[in-house]
Amino acid sequence: MSFREDGAAALEWVASYLERVGELPVLAQVEPGEIRSRLPASPPEQAEPFTNVLRDLDDVLLPGLTHWQSPRFFAYFASTASEPGILAELLVAGLNQVGILWRTSPALQELEELTLDWLAQLLGLPSGLHGHIEDTASTATMTALAAARHAKPGARVVVCSEHAHSSVEKACRLLALELRRAPVDDAFRLRPSELDLVGACAVVATVGTTSTSSVDPVAAIADAAARDGVWLHVDAAYAGSAAVCPELRHHFAGWERADSIVVNPHKWLFTPMDCSTLWTRRPDDLRAAFSLVPEYLRVSEEVASLSEYSPALGRRFRALKLWAVLRCYGREGLQERIREAIRLAGLFEGWVRDEPGWELAAPRPFSLVCFRREGSDEENEVLLERVNASGKIFLSHTKLNGRFALRLAVGSARTTEADVRLAWGVLRRCAA
Amino acid sequence: MSFREDGAAALEWVASYLERVGELPVLAQVEPGEIRSRLPASPPEQAEPFTNVLRDLDDVLLPGLTHWQSPRFFAYFASTASEPGILAELLVAGLNQVGILWRTSPALQELEELTLDWLAQLLGLPSGLHGHIEDTASTATMTALAAARHAKPGARVVVCSEHAHSSVEKACRLLALELRRAPVDDAFRLRPSELDLVGACAVVATVGTTSTSSVDPVAAIADAAARDGVWLHVDAAYAGSAAVCPELRHHFAGWERADSIVVNPHKWLFTPMDCSTLWTRRPDDLRAAFSLVPEYLRVSEEVASLSEYSPALGRRFRALKLWAVLRCYGREGLQERIREAIRLAGLFEGWVRDEPGWELAAPRPFSLVCFRREGSDEENEVLLERVNASGKIFLSHTKLNGRFALRLAVGSARTTEADVRLAWGVLRRCAA
Repeated sequence: MSFREDGAAALEWVASYLERVGELPVLAQVEPGEIRSRLPASPPEQAEPFTNVLRDLDDVLLPGLTHWQSPRFFAYFASTASEPGILAELLVAGLNQVGILWRTSPALQELEELTLDWLAQLLGLPSGLHGHIEDTASTATMTALAAARHAKPGARVVVCSEHAHSSVEKACRLLALELRRAPVDDAFRLRPSELDLVGACAVVATVGTTSTSSVDPVAAIADAAARDGVWLHVDAAYAGSAAVCPELRHHFAGWERADSIVVNPHKWLFTPMDCSTLWTRRPDDLRAAFSLVPEYLRVSEEVASLSEYSPALGRRFRALKLWAVLRCYGREGLQERIREAIRLAGLFEGWVRDEPGWELAAPRPFSLVCFRREGSDEENEVLLERVNASGKIFLSHTKLNGRFALRLAVGSARTTEADVRLAWGVLRRCAA
Repeated sequence: MSFREDGAAALEWVASYLERVGELPVLAQVEPGEIRSRLPASPPEQAEPFTNVLRDLDDVLLPGLTHWQSPRFFAYFASTASEPGILAELLVAGLNQVGILWRTSPALQELEELTLDWLAQLLGLPSGLHGHIEDTASTATMTALAAARHAKPGARVVVCSEHAHSSVEKACRLLALELRRAPVDDAFRLRPSELDLVGACAVVATVGTTSTSSVDPVAAIADAAARDGVWLHVDAAYAGSAAVCPELRHHFAGWERADSIVVNPHKWLFTPMDCSTLWTRRPDDLRAAFSLVPEYLRVSEEVASLSEYSPALGRRFRALKLWAVLRCYGREGLQERIREAIRLAGLFEGWVRDEPGWELAAPRPFSLVCFRREGSDEENEVLLERVNASGKIFLSHTKLNGRFALRLAVGSARTTEADVRLAWGVLRRCAA
């Protein structure tokens, strides 16, 4: 193959995809098995040209994609593949560094450490934290909880709120820890007065829950954790990026006392999947939990490798894309996009509040609006299915106090006010 | 930024990097901290152009890279960023799919299932296995062992050979399982006669250990595992790719009876980091161990998502790059490259065998040669440091029966006979 020619075609494919993605149905409109049935059941014997891959991407795969890059993707939390992030991934793949030991890629390790330090500064975190990148918050949280378990032998309980992410439960299963869920108040925040840390090695506070983006009272939880010698892990996977804006830092009060913090730049910081950042002020505990150096990895230089703080041995050069994003946006660019998402969510919230027949279902600290049509759960569920089947917008849902609620999360860097207006129009039409 | 212009520059950077990578020192010749010290300590306030990233990649980062794409990278096991793999990563980043549920990217899930089925066919694995992709073998092995633990409550022991990879030990730590190591014979293969599976939930057999690429007797281990109702996990992370060649399948005899198998296409199947494939014939056990569906992820379609078989909730569209590689190589292309690597390793092995003053340190089933200079461990260690400091080639080491041994692993698709000859010349010169 000609790398330059095929590369130009692939690049043009991506450029034109990003231009037209807003015209495609946001949620894939296919049946289970449909995509697979249109592909050969066996691999080719002989080499095919790369152009065949591009052809099948258009002809076969495209209808089976849910377009996360659509400006009208409002489900879950968006993930923006920003232009510098995409191009950095191209570089990452070309360099194909494998970070195992420092020596297997000094630049990978040092850039990862530096970039995590940069991001900590941008988010107003304390200096001196040890940071590294995991693939997803599931892994980052498991990593933190493994360190917490190791740091407090015998304590086998992890405490979080009813609204903490399912990844906390998954991590506990893996680590053979018991999960205890604390009740929330009427704004879906953990009630510190009902926090029971007996037997706990860790407590997880969430800043920006998945259901409603509610914010646990981190400072009060930090007090309790300090009193009982319990590891405090802060899950700010979605909302953490908002801390680049000083006027939003009040939501994060207390996280500077956390033992570990996870933020996902692949959620709201314009970095393509995957990039989940984990900081700790107790790196020695992570290293004690994870470090294993077999003979074939023993070297002369005395540098701890990042794999000693992490479940995986090898790591991609993810730091390069995060670094590229931080540079190509700059602090001001990041702030501007975060503020715009929050402004758009605020607009939408206002429309819902002011329109008879609709109601808000949760407070809105960031860029997620939870709402519903007055009426039954079934009516709302049907509304959501109808809206998503339109292909114009894609929303998801949750249940709050036992009742079905719709979620509209603004997060893509490509979303404009016109997109949010269009979403409101589609919702009203589908409800009528 | 102009995506097309910056993209063309990034693409040209990669194209020219791959052309000149053979001229760069293979092992980075920098001191710890050197790269970081040449970068600003704080992030920029304003956006910078993407060209600054490319400039700093050349001026600052390049000397800190260990060139895994060099044709003379002979350390550990190589990882080739093939051209289709690189370009597919560009597409993956641009599409930025996040596989959480089937509906969040039907094409991602169905292509991942199909591609794993293709690869199973290429490797001669039984039909009907359930396959998915993890980032690394560390995660894949942990996933398999978590399922094994779940499938046999109360059994808390995992058995593997002394030569099994450190990731098995790491997984056991995470899963709170006890690891028992069985002794090996003089070819570094687990001795089935000394296999004690009492209290075990899983046994790990390795086809292609990291130290020497030795092959555990999988069929005998499968007998024992079947007798005692123990999960058999086969770690073929490196060597598994060699099963594309029918004449090498005898090394894998018995793996068709495994409960789970891990192979890393990012090692010897020309796929850039990260891509580790995991198959199981007991998907229900994986699902039972991992499935967790919170309300906000409940949907109408009845399709199990891949995240129900895996520690992470979100997944990248890694299948696209593996699919692109399989198509652009074809079965014949993959076989040709695997055979060539083995031929080159055989040549090198012959030179070592025939040269007075040198000796082989282990049998060679695949493309890894373990050898040493006759003399002390210290002399061999000094030799290795000297060789690697030359920048011409990069080798790693291990210890076998308490003695230092050098490892030369052929695996890059870019390595030619001339590169292996050059390596031998450097070794002889440095030893003289």
